[in-house]
Amino acid sequence: MLGNGIEAFGLRDDAAVVSLPGGGPLVVSVDSVVEGVHVDLSICSPADVGWKALMGALSDLAAVGAAPIGALVALCVPGGSGHGELALGVMSGVAEASAASGCQVVGGDVSEAGQLTVAVTVLGTVEPGGRPPVSRAGAQPGDVVVLTGPCGASAAGLRQLRARGSAAADRGDLPEAYRRPVARIREGQLGRAADAHAMIDVSDGLALDLHRLADASGVGFELTSIPVATGATREEALGGGEDYELVIAVDDVGLEEMANAFGAAGLRAPVPLGVITAESSTRTLGGNPLERLGWQHTVG
Amino acid sequence: MLGNGIEAFGLRDDAAVVSLPGGGPLVVSVDSVVEGVHVDLSICSPADVGWKALMGALSDLAAVGAAPIGALVALCVPGGSGHGELALGVMSGVAEASAASGCQVVGGDVSEAGQLTVAVTVLGTVEPGGRPPVSRAGAQPGDVVVLTGPCGASAAGLRQLRARGSAAADRGDLPEAYRRPVARIREGQLGRAADAHAMIDVSDGLALDLHRLADASGVGFELTSIPVATGATREEALGGGEDYELVIAVDDVGLEEMANAFGAAGLRAPVPLGVITAESSTRTLGGNPLERLGWQHTVG
Repeated sequence: MLGNGIEAFGLRDDAAVVSLPGGGPLVVSVDSVVEGVHVDLSICSPADVGWKALMGALSDLAAVGAAPIGALVALCVPGGSGHGELALGVMSGVAEASAASGCQVVGGDVSEAGQLTVAVTVLGTVEPGGRPPVSRAGAQPGDVVVLTGPCGASAAGLRQLRARGSAAADRGDLPEAYRRPVARIREGQLGRAADAHAMIDVSDGLALDLHRLADASGVGFELTSIPVATGATREEALGGGEDYELVIAVDDVGLEEMANAFGAAGLRAPVPLGVITAESSTRTLGGNPLERLGWQHTVG
Repeated sequence: MLGNGIEAFGLRDDAAVVSLPGGGPLVVSVDSVVEGVHVDLSICSPADVGWKALMGALSDLAAVGAAPIGALVALCVPGGSGHGELALGVMSGVAEASAASGCQVVGGDVSEAGQLTVAVTVLGTVEPGGRPPVSRAGAQPGDVVVLTGPCGASAAGLRQLRARGSAAADRGDLPEAYRRPVARIREGQLGRAADAHAMIDVSDGLALDLHRLADASGVGFELTSIPVATGATREEALGGGEDYELVIAVDDVGLEEMANAFGAAGLRAPVPLGVITAESSTRTLGGNPLERLGWQHTVG
């Protein structure tokens, strides 16, 4: 714990945990989407951008097993003609994602800027007295590594949209996965309830996020296979990002509990990828070293 | 109350109040600072921008009488050479404002963008069982309107900096008021403790913010005078903004309690401006209608 009830947790995971006087833990995270860097308005609608911004931030709550309480949206839009329409379009997508996730927008701010920028802060919590938020740092040798679903659909959708080059193009499953990703909030909560040792969301690429979980936990992994979304390549599954599936490290007892809970909730069965090992330098898939494929931020 | 513990309060004031399961009220707000719109790096250092961004957001907590818990910073900086230095400069100013205000930075996100943008979300609370956060909407006829200090210093500082045209120029009091404003956190808490009926921070201009408080409360006001900072013009005091003094509407009993508390805390005595009236269309200063002078956002 640092001073003032803020756990060190927050310096490593995307979400931070704050203890409130007289209350349960508050989980907070912030995420930005910038036009021309993270999104391209020639293949996404303004509403898609708003949806992606809120869901991307919510995925950080999902990754620690928190329930969303509310979101604050700082929206910057270019001045000039059409800026009002653009702002309304983004906020309509935020509202759709808010309705889909049950996370209300509780505050916001609109400014002028040279390019569209949406910074979303999300607030979440876990039930008082329940299991605490799950960090990415708790994986233990012998844990099973599971994934909540196949990866690569978002990257494959982006590839299709770029090839077709228009926001009006294909509204198929893969473009939809790119434009309207869904944070795995329920899965994260059930993972936490099953005492998962570590969790992370696949935001920047499955391979990179697997390494991050292993780095934070000081462990290695030996994976046998990874599930690739239909229509996606293996490289897109490993390096594409924005799938928002959760990687969960859990012991055998927890895995059984989690699999039962997923089934009861009508969720896809978690897919086992392999095991956590003690030797931190061993990070393999099918016996070969796993490259750190994924989106490396150019700044920061 | 809306669903999920979020009070309607938040739709009118800059800060929103969220009730947590088993905890006290959480007060949240978000504010953006954009280079070329709100700040100009030819007269401000990157650290000044970081300071101003955090203090501007904290002022929304001050305006409802909340104590800061933590802040999340979404920083967008232009790519290319010097971007790392720029990001570090901004974050050093954020850190200085954090130390000065006792509000820790609990989360952040750094992205690339075409222009420097700093979106700060602040979290605050009030002591469990204490008086609730103060809205801008509770002013009652007969209340005294007070201000925590003279206005116009920030606008006068900006005028001097523009005239001199360099970040290396005058480090006098007025430029300092512009570059390093201070949120009136303690004053807001003492106003709340004294049962102030309504409060607002002077962020966009004293005249405009007086009108906003009166609009939200459905009241008018008759003011006799306003305190102008030394070196500032009357117009700068009325329309300049970013002074972050608090306007407080309070009854006579509360005013006495508040004045005593300010004195005991070593704060400047609150300055009476006039009274709240029932007739909403009467909004005067020295008998003349008060114009809505101030920074009108161009977007949203």
